[in-house]
Formats: sequence, C-alpha cells, structure tokens
Amino acid sequence: MQAVVFDGTLRLVTDYPEPPLRPHEAIIQPHLIGICNTDVEITRGYMGFRGVLGHEFVGTVIACADPAWQGKRVVGEINAACFACAVCLRGDISHCPNRTTLGIDRRDGAMATAFSLPMACLHEVPASVPDSAAVFVEPLAAALEILEQSHLRPTERVAVVGDGKLGAMIVQVLRLPGNDVTLFGRHPERWGLFEQQGITCLPSTADVQHQFDVVVDCTGQPAGLATARRLVRPRGRLILKSTFHADSQLNLTMLVVDEVQLIGSRCGPFAPALRLLERNLIATEPLIAGRFALADALSAFAATVGTLKILLEVSP
Amino acid sequence: MQAVVFDGTLRLVTDYPEPPLRPHEAIIQPHLIGICNTDVEITRGYMGFRGVLGHEFVGTVIACADPAWQGKRVVGEINAACFACAVCLRGDISHCPNRTTLGIDRRDGAMATAFSLPMACLHEVPASVPDSAAVFVEPLAAALEILEQSHLRPTERVAVVGDGKLGAMIVQVLRLPGNDVTLFGRHPERWGLFEQQGITCLPSTADVQHQFDVVVDCTGQPAGLATARRLVRPRGRLILKSTFHADSQLNLTMLVVDEVQLIGSRCGPFAPALRLLERNLIATEPLIAGRFALADALSAFAATVGTLKILLEVSP
Repeated sequence: MQAVVFDGTLRLVTDYPEPPLRPHEAIIQPHLIGICNTDVEITRGYMGFRGVLGHEFVGTVIACADPAWQGKRVVGEINAACFACAVCLRGDISHCPNRTTLGIDRRDGAMATAFSLPMACLHEVPASVPDSAAVFVEPLAAALEILEQSHLRPTERVAVVGDGKLGAMIVQVLRLPGNDVTLFGRHPERWGLFEQQGITCLPSTADVQHQFDVVVDCTGQPAGLATARRLVRPRGRLILKSTFHADSQLNLTMLVVDEVQLIGSRCGPFAPALRLLERNLIATEPLIAGRFALADALSAFAATVGTLKILLEVSP
Repeated sequence: MQAVVFDGTLRLVTDYPEPPLRPHEAIIQPHLIGICNTDVEITRGYMGFRGVLGHEFVGTVIACADPAWQGKRVVGEINAACFACAVCLRGDISHCPNRTTLGIDRRDGAMATAFSLPMACLHEVPASVPDSAAVFVEPLAAALEILEQSHLRPTERVAVVGDGKLGAMIVQVLRLPGNDVTLFGRHPERWGLFEQQGITCLPSTADVQHQFDVVVDCTGQPAGLATARRLVRPRGRLILKSTFHADSQLNLTMLVVDEVQLIGSRCGPFAPALRLLERNLIATEPLIAGRFALADALSAFAATVGTLKILLEVSP
C-alpha cells in the first residue's frame, strides 16, 4: 500500500506492508489527514520516530473484531495505552508509560492507504460534521486540554502567542467562555477570521508587558516562550503547547520571584471537540490552505511551512 | 550604628547612618536575625543588591508615627508595596512593581542596630511565641505559600528535594494536611527530627522516578531541579522555591509531553505562620545551628554554609 514514511528521509513508499488486524484494534481507511507542525518536527529528528507519519485524520473502519465499528466514520485519539498500569487505572491514559502514539512514537500513523488503532481510541463522527471539519478534531482537542487542566475564569485576560495552525484552534476555544483574547502573531494576512470573532490581533513584537493572566505559547519555537514570558503578569499562568527538537533556556529564578505557573499541555479530550464542531462554534474551512493527494505528500510537506492547514486526501 | 553591608564585599560597618522615621513606617530594633540562603546568594551577585542585608527578624518597634505600634514585639513581611497600583489593588501586594524588599531590593535590611519597615508589613508576635521561634516566621510563611498557591490533597504523594533551612520548614508544613511526605537530601545527620515527625528521608541519589504527585525543589541549586523533575509523575506539580544567581536549562518539550506544571513560589502569608508557631506545630529549636553577635556577622556568614539556621543577636 501507499504510505508516507520517515526513516531519516521523508519518502513516499508504494509497497508498504498492510497493517495486520490485531485484537482490540480496528483497520481504518483515512479520508483526510492533516499535516501538523509535529510532523514537520519529526522530520527534523523530534522523538527519533521512524515509520508512517500522520496523527490527524478522519476515516472509515474497514476491518474490526467488533462488528459494531465496521463501516463507521471515525476520528481517533492518538495515544494507544495499555489500560492496565497504575497510570491508566488512575485515568491518565494519555500518559500511560507503555503507550505508543500514532505516527509519533512506535506506531505507524495515518498517512497511508490504511492504518490500525485500538477501538478504545475511536470516536464516531456525527453525520452533520463533514470530513473537512472532523480532520481538525485532534488539534481542537489539544486546545480544549487547556480548559481541562486549568480553571479559566471568564474575566481573565488571555493572550495566545502564535497565529499558526494550533493557535487558530486555541484562540477560537479560549474565546468561548467569554474571555478577552489577544492573538500575537506574525501573519497579519490571517487575522481577518479571528478579528471577526472578536479576537484582538497584534504583532508579536508589540510593546506589551505583564498584562495577561493567562498566556499560551503555541509558536513551536524557542523565541515564542520569551514573548509569552514578557506578556504574563506576576502570578499568571503560562501554558506551553510547543514541542520541538531543541532545549530552551529559561530564567527560573524570575519564575520564582514572579510566582508564574508554567503548565505543559498536550493531547486533549475528543468528545467535547466533536460537540464544538457539531454546534458550529469553531471555524475550520478558512483554515484549510491546500489539499494534496496522498501520492503528492512530499509536495504537501513542502507547502506546509509558513501556511495554515494542509490536508492529504486518500481516494477510496 | 552597626550594620552588615554588602557593597560588592560583605563587611561590618560601625558608623552606618540611622534610618530616618518615614511616614507610615516604623523603626525596629531587631532581637534576632536569621541568615537565609538568599543572603548568601546576594553576596554572590543575586539581585545586584547593595546595602544592609537581612530579611528574617523578630524585634521591637522603637519609633513609629502610630503610637499603637510603639514597644510592640513584631515580625515583618519583607515586601514594601505602594498600595496604589493595579497589582496592589488586585491584592497581589507582594508582586507590586513598585515594591522594595527588605535586605534584597532597594531597601536596607534587618542586620543592623535598627531598620525601617512600613507599618502595613508588621505583625505582632503572640506572647507565647519566643523570639527564637518567631525569627522563623518569614521562611515558614514561604513554606505556607505552597498551600496558598495550589490545592494539596491529603492523599497526594509529596516529595521535597533539599534538606536545608527552607526544606526543614516545607516538610513540616506539608505533613500537616496528613500527606505522605518524603524528604530527599544530602545530610542524613539532620534527618532524625523529620523522621520523628513521620517524614521519610532518602538520599537525593535514591533510584526513585515519577512517583510523586507534588515535588518541591528548595535546594537552591540547578541540580535540584533535575532531581525534582525525575521524581514528579506525569501531570504532577513541580514547585520551585530556589532562587539563585544563574540560569537553568530545562527540557520544556518533555514538560509539555508529560503535562507537568511548574509553579514558581516565593513569599507567603505571615498570619497563618504565626498561628502554626502558637499551636506548636512546627519545630524550630532543633534547626538552630548557631548564634553570633551582630558584631561577629562575618564569622556567622562563614559558618552558615552547609549547616542549618545561623542567627545573629542584637543586644538592646
């Protein structure tokens, strides 16, 4: 089958072996797969991953031990946990130390004609949510994780640093409780959509300091953290959404003096993300910058830098 | 008057000018002053402070515009705020951007025959609390700040990294809600007191990983953070109490992946600290490693490295 493989080099493979049907898993034929900054970081060495890329998808179950899933249109959580260890039994399934992660860590991803994922990870997509919206569930869930981790009061002033793919999800989610949200970015050409939604947009270089109760860094770059640190007030919360293949330097003493909280934030809950899409509360169509056939994945990766969401299409 | 001054060199000055009586302030004659690791860090360049050192004290008000304070035995919060800016009006007085800090930032400290502090900072010491306990109120309040900032569930597993002066306060406070507390340190000769209090003590090098819900780093050294990071579980809280004159390197991506919360923590509330001392819930006498006359402050500073609390005595 066709698959987009990273083995030190990003390549399209046409004779990749079909995934076997494992107990408790389902074989899925993807319709659409999103390219995420994490995919790009993996091609730079992040996580040392080797295999099929892709973790944002919507598709159809084509084989499964449980006939109830057969033919269902699904999205899927990306962490395949053991459901047996102390971490899983505590409910922290996405932190299972035995987990594999779709297209990120020891589990082939969705950029292929077919791939496998545990049934426990699957969520059926409501009929009213089109594929082109459902493919955003994974990053939308990651945005919701911020509300899952920390109590966001509607009166708190929120800043989001980074007007990229993930930032577009995060500002749209954090405006929902009624918060005053400011987006700091470097792409004014993208701001129209957000400004229509009542979000203030400013250049990252704007001279603003220590004015925000909650600041999210989703730039994916070390420099974003410095901007976020400048924006957060003493005793504020700085939420880190960036993962990249590099260490960061941070003055931890000033974190102590200012009693800032740094909150690492990763994957989030799919069910509320699907409900937001059903309720038409999140704009996704304007975020699609291009569609490529799976066979043109290398061109798609080349096109993804500096733009919003690029989707890969798999013909049935 | 006598004063312990840092002006690039630590020195005892015998003709330092007496503090003037300012409106809203009180002149205090200290009885005892504690030497804190922050004092030692200041002599290494931390905060770029120049002036009289000392911020842990108990003393008597010898002059004050408000006669109600005259002759009172007091301890004092160290941040002198403006009480007028937006930060103060929000209640975050210890984060006032216009604040000066006793013996740390643009305000002469307590290691002198007399010093000045705003009346708003003062707390009268209950008669039942001796000077030798009251002098611990400032670090005890800093320990209580952890409970002020974050909800500590009695079932959460707590680790404290650092068996020094501040660690001794923190383990004693965090055991009070009934938590299982483990102290990681390098001074087994100090552990008897803590073990009597039901605290488990282990060497910092013990092979323990990701087992604690809440980990406090109060080592005052960059290496302590690495130990704390190793001990905290995914989705756990890592509380930073260390301030030092150096940057730290931290893998922020792993903080995101593990969704760890980093909580900077500084000065805390004095009133509950005084109540804990009144209720005899905190042992302080065993923590006193030596007493020196103010005139012998240089010897006292030399003695403070590698030991518990060294106190300076000021004769009336």
